[in-house]
Amino acid sequence: MRKIVIASDRPKQIVDVTERIERELKGLGVIDGVCTLFVTHTTAALTTADLDPGTDLDMLDAFDQLIPKLRYRHPHDPGHVPDHILASLIGPALALPVGDGKLVLGTWQRVVLVELDGPRERQVLLSV
Amino acid sequence: MRKIVIASDRPKQIVDVTERIERELKGLGVIDGVCTLFVTHTTAALTTADLDPGTDLDMLDAFDQLIPKLRYRHPHDPGHVPDHILASLIGPALALPVGDGKLVLGTWQRVVLVELDGPRERQVLLSV
Amino acid sequence: MRKIVIASDRPKQIVDVTERIERELKGLGVIDGVCTLFVTHTTAALTTADLDPGTDLDMLDAFDQLIPKLRYRHPHDPGHVPDHILASLIGPALALPVGDGKLVLGTWQRVVLVELDGPRERQVLLSV
Repeated sequence: MRKIVIASDRPKQIVDVTERIERELKGLGVIDGVCTLFVTHTTAALTTADLDPGTDLDMLDAFDQLIPKLRYRHPHDPGHVPDHILASLIGPALALPVGDGKLVLGTWQRVVLVELDGPRERQVLLSV
Repeated sequence: MRKIVIASDRPKQIVDVTERIERELKGLGVIDGVCTLFVTHTTAALTTADLDPGTDLDMLDAFDQLIPKLRYRHPHDPGHVPDHILASLIGPALALPVGDGKLVLGTWQRVVLVELDGPRERQVLLSV
Repeated sequence: MRKIVIASDRPKQIVDVTERIERELKGLGVIDGVCTLFVTHTTAALTTADLDPGTDLDMLDAFDQLIPKLRYRHPHDPGHVPDHILASLIGPALALPVGDGKLVLGTWQRVVLVELDGPRERQVLLSV
């Protein structure tokens, strides 16, 4: 298992981690198989996305309106409850196919960390 | 593969299954690797979440309003269609890193089963 | 790793791929384990669902209203941004338990590809 640190630099951000993951796979000498990622946080998540210019901001705009803004009970930060829920919904884990030492993705598909409470350093665990 | 039975005791419930999974890993003697969970139901799902007091109810409140209440076609229980859709959206599967015989999670991160049509016994399959 | 081609025949469609995956597992001679699926596209996703008659259309109706229709920035197809976001939210990957050469699913649970920009041929990668 490898610990990867991803630094976000804005409160909400779609961070492209594709190259970071591929560099790690290269370091590990992985040629073929499945690589599993897991983010050890409750206000960040992992998925894949099209990252044409502006699409990251489109996604954040949609996410901002997706979760209803109710009177939440969370004792420390009720305003952050939608971020927690979004993170649970998108999910903390991702299994990615590896072929010829690279992630096998679609033409426009990138691996992204969804930062919902940054800027922060986030830990992603990679297992092969 | 191990079959784990999780009993929910309310119609909607966020059930913390972290300790149950770790007990199973201990029984299997797993030290390091990736553990895959899968719930064999269409009105329950698996994810991770912050479980500060009240946050489980916050999550259920948000989920209740998330899926639009339309005129659905489902022949047996049209009222349960939002539960089915939510389960598909959150997802039935979860891959979790294991280190030193324990799940490697964030400080506030718990593994949860989202019960959307309880109370019921739910089957979760664990593979290592 | 095996490449599976799934053809959708409508713009939006819930495609049941359960038998297709089981045929592939049979061809590979897989008896027990975990099978990982990954769709290499940004307007399609993988999950499981109840597929009682009409439920596929119910799901598409709900998805259509789930993502807010905002003024998106995407340079080529701003109208498709909700499809991209939905695909990221449902997720591109799925880990499924295999027992006795078959997928171990719930009674009403089917493995589905969610097509959001069809009709199209979609590539799903299967690893065991």
